[in-house]
Formats: sequence, C-alpha cells, structure tokens
Amino acid sequence: MTSTAMPAPAILGQHRAALEAALRSAVGDDVNPLAAAVRYAMGWEDESGTTTDAGGKRIRPALCLFAAGAFGGSVQEALPGAVAVELVHNFSLVHDEVQDRDAERHHRPTVWARMGEAQAINVGDFLYTRAVRALTVGPGDGSRRLYALHVLNDAISRMIQGQWQDIAFEARTTVTVEEYLDMVTGKTGALLAAPLEIGAILAGAPDEAAAAVGRWGAHVGAAFQAQDDYLGIWGNPNRTGKSNTNDIVRRKKTLPIVHGSADPDVAAAIARTHGQPVVSERDVESVVAALKHAGSDEYCRARARSQAAEADTLLEEIPLTNTVREQFRAIAAYLVDRES
Amino acid sequence: MTSTAMPAPAILGQHRAALEAALRSAVGDDVNPLAAAVRYAMGWEDESGTTTDAGGKRIRPALCLFAAGAFGGSVQEALPGAVAVELVHNFSLVHDEVQDRDAERHHRPTVWARMGEAQAINVGDFLYTRAVRALTVGPGDGSRRLYALHVLNDAISRMIQGQWQDIAFEARTTVTVEEYLDMVTGKTGALLAAPLEIGAILAGAPDEAAAAVGRWGAHVGAAFQAQDDYLGIWGNPNRTGKSNTNDIVRRKKTLPIVHGSADPDVAAAIARTHGQPVVSERDVESVVAALKHAGSDEYCRARARSQAAEADTLLEEIPLTNTVREQFRAIAAYLVDRES
Repeated sequence: MTSTAMPAPAILGQHRAALEAALRSAVGDDVNPLAAAVRYAMGWEDESGTTTDAGGKRIRPALCLFAAGAFGGSVQEALPGAVAVELVHNFSLVHDEVQDRDAERHHRPTVWARMGEAQAINVGDFLYTRAVRALTVGPGDGSRRLYALHVLNDAISRMIQGQWQDIAFEARTTVTVEEYLDMVTGKTGALLAAPLEIGAILAGAPDEAAAAVGRWGAHVGAAFQAQDDYLGIWGNPNRTGKSNTNDIVRRKKTLPIVHGSADPDVAAAIARTHGQPVVSERDVESVVAALKHAGSDEYCRARARSQAAEADTLLEEIPLTNTVREQFRAIAAYLVDRES
Repeated sequence: MTSTAMPAPAILGQHRAALEAALRSAVGDDVNPLAAAVRYAMGWEDESGTTTDAGGKRIRPALCLFAAGAFGGSVQEALPGAVAVELVHNFSLVHDEVQDRDAERHHRPTVWARMGEAQAINVGDFLYTRAVRALTVGPGDGSRRLYALHVLNDAISRMIQGQWQDIAFEARTTVTVEEYLDMVTGKTGALLAAPLEIGAILAGAPDEAAAAVGRWGAHVGAAFQAQDDYLGIWGNPNRTGKSNTNDIVRRKKTLPIVHGSADPDVAAAIARTHGQPVVSERDVESVVAALKHAGSDEYCRARARSQAAEADTLLEEIPLTNTVREQFRAIAAYLVDRES
C-alpha cells in the first residue's frame, strides 16, 4: 500500500522546521529576560543562552498539522493552531513542575529550579498569552480561529481540572479507577484530542467531522496514557529513559497502582513502602510482583488495546480517503504500540 | 449640569447586579472543588462555603460597561468583556499572592494560604480559561469578540511582563524611576486601559476611537497608580484601610521610594532599615521625613496630576457627546483625587 509508505514518525515530523520557526516567532525574539526564560522553557537555549535543541517531540502540533492536511488544509492555515497547542503544552509543563517540585526534565533543570517559583509562574502565564495570541491574529478565517481558540481553551480548562484532581489525590489513600481515569482524561487527554479537532477546524472541516477527529484523538490519548502508565512500571528503563521504580517510590497514583490497590496483597505491599523514609529495591519489587499477580499489567494493556480499537472504529465514521485513514492508523500504532 | 447629576460611583456601580450574575454564570456553579475554590477567590463564599460579599469594587468591568455605553452599546453586548477583565484581574491576584507570599487580602486568607500554592496556581489558571471563554462564546458579533480578546490578551501579556520585572527588582538595590514606571505600566496599567478599549470595541466603536479610549484609561491608570503609591506612605490608614508603614517595612519599591532613592539622605535612611530584622517605627519615620525632604511626595502628586491632565486632553479627540465626556471626567476625578 502506498498509503503506509510514509511511517508515522515521518508524517508527524515533516513540518518540524516550519513549526519551530512559527513557535519562535510567536514567542518573540525580544531581549527582555522573560522572553529568554521562555526560550529556555521551549528548549531552544541552555542556561547560558547558547542555542540548543531540547524541545521534545512536538507531538501535539504535529497532530494538528496532520489533521488539517487530512481535510485538505494547508500547513499555513493550521500553523497558528499548532503553535498554540505546543505553547499551551509547555505552559502546563512549567506550572506542573512548580506544583510537583520537579527539579529536572529531560536532564535539564526545570524553569523554577533555575529562576524560582515566582518567575516560573510568570513564564507559564506568559506562554498561555502567547498561545492565545497565535489564534487571535494571523492568517485565515477569523471565525474559524475563534472557534479553534474556543476548543483549545476548553481543553485547557479540562486539563487544569485534571491537574487539580491529581494534586487532590495525593492527600488521599485510595482513588478508584473511575476517578483516576476522569482525572487523566482531563490532565493529559484533553490536550491530545484538541490539536486534532483544531487542525480540522482550521482546515475548514465541518464541525461534526472536526469533533469526531477530536474524539479519535481522545481515544488514542487514553490508549497512549494507559501504555505510558504500563511502561512506568514494566518498561525497559534503557528504552524509556525513565526509571521504572520512580512511580512506586514517589507513590504516584498511576493506572496499574489504582487498579491493583483493590487487591489486598498489592495494598499491603504498597503500605509497606509508605512507612519508610527511603523505599528499598526489594519493596519495590514486591509491589511490582503483587501488581502483576493482580493482573494490573494486563489491565493496562487491555485498556490501551480497547481504546485504540474504539479510535479505529470511529475512523470509519469520518469522511476521509482510505489513504488518510491508513495514516491515522499508523499514527495510532506509533503512539500506542511503543516500548518507550 | 445634568451631566454630572450622576456621581462617578453611581455610574460605575449601576450594573453591578447584572455583572455579578454574569460572572457567576461564567465561572459555573458546578460542585467540583475547583469551582468552589474559584467562588472563594471571587469573594462569593467564605471558607465554609457560606455566601458572602467580599468581591471588591469591580472597577475594571465597570469601566468596560461604561465605555460600551459611551459608544451607544448595550450592557448585554459588553458583559462578556466586563466578565473577562474581572476574571483576569482575579487570576492575577491569585498568582500574585502566591508569588508575594501574601497570606491575607481584605482580611481573608488568600487562596494559597487556604489550599496551598499548587492548587492556587490551578485556581489562577482556571480563572484565565474562564475569562477567555467569556469572549469565545456568547452574544454579539464574533469578529468584535475576537478583537476584544486580542486586546485583553495583549494586556495580560504586558501585565505578566510587569510582574516579572517587579519580582526581578526585589533582588536589586536600585531601580530607576523609568524602570519603575515601565514595570508598573505593565503590571497595573495594562488592565486598567484594556477594559475601556474592550467596552468600546464590543459596542462597535471604530478601532481608532476604541484605542483612544484605551489610552485615556492608560493615563488615568498611571495617575491612579501614582496616587496609590503616594497614599501607601502618606495616606491616612483609617481611610485607606492599609498600614502606611508597610511599603517601607517590606522594602517595596514604589514610586516615592525609587524617586527618593537618588537622594543620599533617603538612601541612607533606607539602608538603615535594611540591616534590621524588625524595622522600628522611628526608622520608618526617618525614611518618610527624608522622602518628604527630597520632594518625593510632591513628585507623586505631580505625576498623578500630569497624567490626569493628559487623559483629559485626549478626551477632546474622541467622538463623544459632552455629557459622556463629563462622565469620563467624573470617573477620572473619582479614581485619582481620592484619599483612600
């Protein structure tokens, strides 16, 4: 099939240079220190102001540009949306790091670790304004940009509600699977679904088709997250680049943990880790073994599969060519069937 | 003159009930705890969830509704803008309190003092989303709402840049008057000017007239701020409700302080307060006396007068009836010639 000739990473990466240029122009290259802090947050500069490339995968804007193309839209029309979603993603990371006291991301000090919490709050807020600005001015039809902004802003609202729930969960001993899924659908799902809907809107797709593409993104996002939570415990740290004991040591409530916690053996193993100032390797292993025995690994993988299947079914309802439909499938497979 | 029959507070207060109703509807009355936190932040509920009325003066939305009326617009058309500016103002207060570690505002615990910094960041972010949402949906012409949102968002951007500067100043020993004015023009001026421009835009005023009304607001805002900084030291605490030693004890860089610091006696008096864990009443008095001797009190009042005069001159260029022009003047006088 010619449709699968271009693998998903190539589909998603093909406009990277145009995207980075548009992102830089949206942030502004002015010399005030706030703009410099934003360039650091975006991964373009290191601590000394030297050019670097630590900007992450830019998955969300790539999804936006892809969705626009799927409905015959141009890169130019969709770039404001792509820029906006990526700036919002970075705004959320910067505030999240303050909230979670994360001092490092991708082997670099986080914004608050470098310049303090107060200024990191400003950096996040400023990124939000730059995201909105990407859609309040610029090329293309104003009413489509306004609608795209509305969809983006509602996604931000759900994201923040999810973040609120996530922080509230930290103070609780038990969280149900339903509560966890509601939280994570907001916290990470909303900003995976919105880029697709926004791309379709900016390309001039009918509202219902744009909404359906957004729902596809929501299901793929849910599958992605279930796989991410699985890899957080059973992934190969050499491939994920993340410790697979971290989620347990830091007592994070991820899908396998909230699923397994209904099992008395898991609950007992987790409780043992809670009394300790430093959690031993051995206790982490006993939690992992109990989770596996409770079927929490398979529960995550099954959810990833079923959400991916729902996304796939949904594709049939959206007016797309078969070639484009195959591209959607390649992207879903890339995001879900991964080991890192 | 019939035009001055309605005093400024009455002009600004006449739509208060409609405004509060629109604000509540914009926040949403849903039962999730984030919405409850927002109701607390907005002054509608106390710590136990009981109804209260601690919402502040709502000056910014009142200016927005007034400007719309000045150009023949209806309250209904302008309410989305009024709601948006007030929600943004509250978003900025909530983040500001986290950044400044202010534990009280208007005799109530601040949001972070009640629910922690992490959740206060969320409350501020959520208020921002509700502000944007007020303008992405709703009545009236979509292109006007998009333009109003653009103006609001640029004001937020300047506000955050001002907030960045203000925090950066804390680490510096000297700040020039020019640097201070640039900071405060962003931090507090932008969100006093924008409501007027937004009201005019939503009423369908020509872009240039709307921009001119915004500039009027910027000058009145500058006069207001100069007066505020004056009252911070020379105001009567019984009338302002604020301590008039606080700015000195907390080493805040306000206009009289940055103006006076060029004077060696002021600099010496301020330096004496810096070595001390607790600043004595006597040292505060010596700073105040040195400031007065350096003419810093008169400098603030002169700036308030000259900015008010610039605003007044500008009024002549804007196509308004004489009656409306007198209302603008009454509002300026109310905001600037105050003792509290």
